[in-house]
Amino acid sequence: MHLADATWTDVDDCDTDLALLPVGSTEQHGPHAPLGTDTLTATAVADAAAEAYDEEVVVAPAIPVGVAEEHRQFTGTLWVSPETFRDYVRETVQSLAHHGFDRVVVVNGHGGNVDALREVTGTISRHDDAYAVAFTWFESVGEHSSDMGHGGPLETAMLRHLAPELVQEDRLDEAREGAADGWGEWVSRVNLAHDSAEFSENGVVGDPAEGDTERGEELLTLATASLVKLLDAVAKRDVRRPDHR
Amino acid sequence: MHLADATWTDVDDCDTDLALLPVGSTEQHGPHAPLGTDTLTATAVADAAAEAYDEEVVVAPAIPVGVAEEHRQFTGTLWVSPETFRDYVRETVQSLAHHGFDRVVVVNGHGGNVDALREVTGTISRHDDAYAVAFTWFESVGEHSSDMGHGGPLETAMLRHLAPELVQEDRLDEAREGAADGWGEWVSRVNLAHDSAEFSENGVVGDPAEGDTERGEELLTLATASLVKLLDAVAKRDVRRPDHR
Amino acid sequence: MHLADATWTDVDDCDTDLALLPVGSTEQHGPHAPLGTDTLTATAVADAAAEAYDEEVVVAPAIPVGVAEEHRQFTGTLWVSPETFRDYVRETVQSLAHHGFDRVVVVNGHGGNVDALREVTGTISRHDDAYAVAFTWFESVGEHSSDMGHGGPLETAMLRHLAPELVQEDRLDEAREGAADGWGEWVSRVNLAHDSAEFSENGVVGDPAEGDTERGEELLTLATASLVKLLDAVAKRDVRRPDHR
Amino acid sequence: MHLADATWTDVDDCDTDLALLPVGSTEQHGPHAPLGTDTLTATAVADAAAEAYDEEVVVAPAIPVGVAEEHRQFTGTLWVSPETFRDYVRETVQSLAHHGFDRVVVVNGHGGNVDALREVTGTISRHDDAYAVAFTWFESVGEHSSDMGHGGPLETAMLRHLAPELVQEDRLDEAREGAADGWGEWVSRVNLAHDSAEFSENGVVGDPAEGDTERGEELLTLATASLVKLLDAVAKRDVRRPDHR
Amino acid sequence: MHLADATWTDVDDCDTDLALLPVGSTEQHGPHAPLGTDTLTATAVADAAAEAYDEEVVVAPAIPVGVAEEHRQFTGTLWVSPETFRDYVRETVQSLAHHGFDRVVVVNGHGGNVDALREVTGTISRHDDAYAVAFTWFESVGEHSSDMGHGGPLETAMLRHLAPELVQEDRLDEAREGAADGWGEWVSRVNLAHDSAEFSENGVVGDPAEGDTERGEELLTLATASLVKLLDAVAKRDVRRPDHR
Amino acid sequence: MHLADATWTDVDDCDTDLALLPVGSTEQHGPHAPLGTDTLTATAVADAAAEAYDEEVVVAPAIPVGVAEEHRQFTGTLWVSPETFRDYVRETVQSLAHHGFDRVVVVNGHGGNVDALREVTGTISRHDDAYAVAFTWFESVGEHSSDMGHGGPLETAMLRHLAPELVQEDRLDEAREGAADGWGEWVSRVNLAHDSAEFSENGVVGDPAEGDTERGEELLTLATASLVKLLDAVAKRDVRRPDHR
Repeated sequence: MHLADATWTDVDDCDTDLALLPVGSTEQHGPHAPLGTDTLTATAVADAAAEAYDEEVVVAPAIPVGVAEEHRQFTGTLWVSPETFRDYVRETVQSLAHHGFDRVVVVNGHGGNVDALREVTGTISRHDDAYAVAFTWFESVGEHSSDMGHGGPLETAMLRHLAPELVQEDRLDEAREGAADGWGEWVSRVNLAHDSAEFSENGVVGDPAEGDTERGEELLTLATASLVKLLDAVAKRDVRRPDHR
Repeated sequence: MHLADATWTDVDDCDTDLALLPVGSTEQHGPHAPLGTDTLTATAVADAAAEAYDEEVVVAPAIPVGVAEEHRQFTGTLWVSPETFRDYVRETVQSLAHHGFDRVVVVNGHGGNVDALREVTGTISRHDDAYAVAFTWFESVGEHSSDMGHGGPLETAMLRHLAPELVQEDRLDEAREGAADGWGEWVSRVNLAHDSAEFSENGVVGDPAEGDTERGEELLTLATASLVKLLDAVAKRDVRRPDHR
Repeated sequence: MHLADATWTDVDDCDTDLALLPVGSTEQHGPHAPLGTDTLTATAVADAAAEAYDEEVVVAPAIPVGVAEEHRQFTGTLWVSPETFRDYVRETVQSLAHHGFDRVVVVNGHGGNVDALREVTGTISRHDDAYAVAFTWFESVGEHSSDMGHGGPLETAMLRHLAPELVQEDRLDEAREGAADGWGEWVSRVNLAHDSAEFSENGVVGDPAEGDTERGEELLTLATASLVKLLDAVAKRDVRRPDHR
Repeated sequence: MHLADATWTDVDDCDTDLALLPVGSTEQHGPHAPLGTDTLTATAVADAAAEAYDEEVVVAPAIPVGVAEEHRQFTGTLWVSPETFRDYVRETVQSLAHHGFDRVVVVNGHGGNVDALREVTGTISRHDDAYAVAFTWFESVGEHSSDMGHGGPLETAMLRHLAPELVQEDRLDEAREGAADGWGEWVSRVNLAHDSAEFSENGVVGDPAEGDTERGEELLTLATASLVKLLDAVAKRDVRRPDHR
Repeated sequence: MHLADATWTDVDDCDTDLALLPVGSTEQHGPHAPLGTDTLTATAVADAAAEAYDEEVVVAPAIPVGVAEEHRQFTGTLWVSPETFRDYVRETVQSLAHHGFDRVVVVNGHGGNVDALREVTGTISRHDDAYAVAFTWFESVGEHSSDMGHGGPLETAMLRHLAPELVQEDRLDEAREGAADGWGEWVSRVNLAHDSAEFSENGVVGDPAEGDTERGEELLTLATASLVKLLDAVAKRDVRRPDHR
Repeated sequence: MHLADATWTDVDDCDTDLALLPVGSTEQHGPHAPLGTDTLTATAVADAAAEAYDEEVVVAPAIPVGVAEEHRQFTGTLWVSPETFRDYVRETVQSLAHHGFDRVVVVNGHGGNVDALREVTGTISRHDDAYAVAFTWFESVGEHSSDMGHGGPLETAMLRHLAPELVQEDRLDEAREGAADGWGEWVSRVNLAHDSAEFSENGVVGDPAEGDTERGEELLTLATASLVKLLDAVAKRDVRRPDHR
């Protein structure tokens, strides 16, 4: 059940303690893909999983601005500080829990949100009346995951499947030419680059041409199955904190 | 130009310093109207005005959770604290301004956000490298404005015009019966009620039956015209702070 | 009973749960009226109501610096940020409530404090062990209220009645000449001005000549009666938060 | 020049960079002395020094609630957290400095404020466009200073001189009987007591009978002279921060 | 040069802009290894690298309490919130940079600090007058890294090499028996456990018996070489932020 | 029992509610004494007292960076803001109390930490599940205390006794020549200097030559005895907060 579309009485009739909270970002994804890519993909995965899961689950509206300062050299990228992002997510989850939806999976579409979400779901689970974990769809698509990049194969594939009209197909060559091979500049397993503009000309990492519609469909299927499996585990888990040893 | 749908290179080509930031809420709107009403209406007004305005203006994605703790007794209502809301809006505006979109109109669909938006747009305009004001659509629809309520005539009318499938027409009688006549409980011009559940049985204020599709269309037209006029004034205004006297 | 003048043992003997907390501002009021106008008027109204009310009520000392950055272009204006102001008011109210004075009316004399006080009294009433509302005297003086301005008819009248030695009568012409007719610069019901210096030469809004001593006396009588009525309503109100629906 | 009583144009004509900011507290002072003692004495010393100093100096209104949680067991004591107190003082001083009054002496009447004021004046002087120091009157009255107590000889003497009607003379025996000899409970130069109720029955420390009117007059004279001397030193001091060595 | 042991004049003579800031934790490491393991190892690696690097580098004292709430069920574990940890690290780095040591490598010995350090070094590099990265020694020891665990092979090996007297050899069987095979409880690449007590009986992960002295020596050699290489890269890097595209 | 060296199982067997938390600073101590002086001395006193006390007491690792911005003109001085310092200490104490070590003596070696520690131990004792006080060793060494200075007699003596290799004996003349006689620049009992560089050429206050090894030994003996006495008082004290009067 999508909160945005339902009335409060509908939600009140809903017999579940499970909620999905999609979280995206509005940030550059190269010259060929839209700034809203991460919100769009996170929403699609959350929607598909809520549909596929055989028990009821409420779906909150997607949070559209995340931790993306690393892309600020590229026009149109929006961001808030990690602290503000964590506060916004935490308080939204607390309000879900206030109504009994106290097992929450944050469905994330942006790599830059991962650390902040791990931290805030830990804080919520230890200190608030709720249990939360964060699921980042592209980490859970089998061997595809190693191909992630940025505006690269996976995201381009998902967009072609979900919203082909938003992919600027005529700029793919340009996208590929200005792309970096990998994320970051690494020495001794430390990334020396704090901004994506330090290693990518146009913001792209990886080859978007390697992400066709079929791959997009497969990615959505894989991510959905992973999230459904996670929902099931979250529904059944004993989420009480362990006793002091 | 909608940021979510555009590439960073498209946005970079955009020759304007004007931006619209829609802000809504996810909160109860009675048994007949969806929790997402405020986000939906704010987005519609922002979109229509961006379309109607004869210069370019960028439109950010809508912020979906606002200051709505006053509705927390009704299931599904989401909220963040006013402080977190202001931080989230302020930093989003700062990131818009970082790219040169430094004249920002926040387009608001929720009464509970008004105070916080007035404060934060003042703070932004005085202390950041941007100028911002907040426009709340239902305050700027001529004589209709006095009819606002909550889930009442105006919002129901807008929904019927914009998204009739989200209005539960068969619950209108129920909505009307549990509704309050006016917002709050007033003594000496002070509202003694801090929560809407103190004065409304089902969260509704005003009679939703008084908001038909035609009225919705008129409201959208009026709000759009007001916002276009405001955009024009913001575009031309000298936004420097006055000198010390 | 005024806290500042009483001993703790006197206050301990006081059988009430009602408290008044006057809140003013130190800010420009034109060339003819003192910076302390708002503190002075708020204190006078609080004192008169405590005197007139037929049950005991404790009166805290007035908070003299509020949310007044909008007047910062005029020398001598003092201000704190809205956040600091809310913290200061909230913690002061919490300490009142610690002693059992947990029904608190904030008596306000400054328009710039209104939003912040509405927010903080809501926060207190929902999250602390106290109930609080804010009363702004010039909003509750009948038809006079529409005449408010700034350093205009109402405030000048009150000062002439309460502290005529602080009104610079010989500068009234000057005050009137540099005054604005109304507060702000409005387009589509949005105030484009964030600072009073954007629309007023000397900080005055409205004609101070329209506020004579008799009007001041009437204003004090009206405001006092309104506040007494409010105290009575607050004393009798069920201030528990409603149950979840 | 007292800001509260002056118009902004008067203050604008004022040729000085010196300001006094009185800071008090509203807290128990035993069964014989009023809760407002510290605000009253701080204000009196600031007023007397501004009068006695031969150059102009602006005087801000007194801040009436300070760091006094240590007295919370005694009814009527008000307090804010040290953090909120520092913010309130710091921002008030910043607004003074905004108008050119950037050499500020905080005139303090309460022992519990001392640490917080030392910290915040250091922060202001290092990081803001102002220089500030804190003067606590009873630390600067020669050999009397060792007699301070709480509601004891010095404060009772000052009150008898400044506002004898606020001293409950008929409760002096009671005050003396419940008084502690000294402040705190000390082991190895560490005070084990965090609240005054741990060592004083009625909140008094020291013998109030040892503070007659004459002593009060002398104290005011001594404190005023000390503050005038300090004002002169502050006026002449090179307040730039030293260079890095 | 170790700051703790040097005089300010020695440090002033030091011709470098490089600094190392060791960061550890005080937290359970099973029944056989000390709570201070992470501080000890981080310090050892920082010391060895400063020694081995052929240019001068200053070494700050180790920060001993980090982000370790996940181990709070085990007695003696100390922790601060991630926010306080970031503030403490950030301000310490700012003070290093104040003296010209503005290329800082944080040398970390604790997995729980990794996310917070990545965030805060990004914040520092973007917003402060310094460049910082975080190096976690056990991520940079070649193929050993996959063996990390907790109180497992790598840490036990390092301790045996660096401080054998702190390893309780007679409890190794006990340590092994209560150990978990891997860190966390994973479903769909999401760790459902927020506390280590959810998956480990005694806090250990991995087999401590697989970490002998020789391995410890090799680990220190590898980590030191990695850190020296990183220091060199940091010394030579253009650390200016990229221009807006 | 030193937490850093013990396993969690050892600490779990420890039957005490007493803990010592050493707190130092890394800051200039003149041309002859190391930046780590305050951490070193605080640690030594804590260790000696834990040894001498006849009941068990746990000793946390020393916090090495404190409130020392006043020394920032001298190279190598590290500091955090008082607010961050208080947070770091408070949360560390809270984690000690989480395991039952809820009577905590902070053992301090730096004058600049005194105010912040008094505040935070009060906050902890009133609002957290712990009781805490702060002991500053050089305040509790009998008549020696009046000789404190900075890098002067007492600290130099302690260093010569505890770590003679860290004292640059050949720079003592230089140290003495650039030293100030006393701390600060005082008018009317107010210190006008916010930074030590305002009154000391080389950061030293007092004559380091007056601190020989024997004096150092005596200081350690005196401080240890004072701390043992304090531990005993803390162990036996009724630490519940008093009832409201």
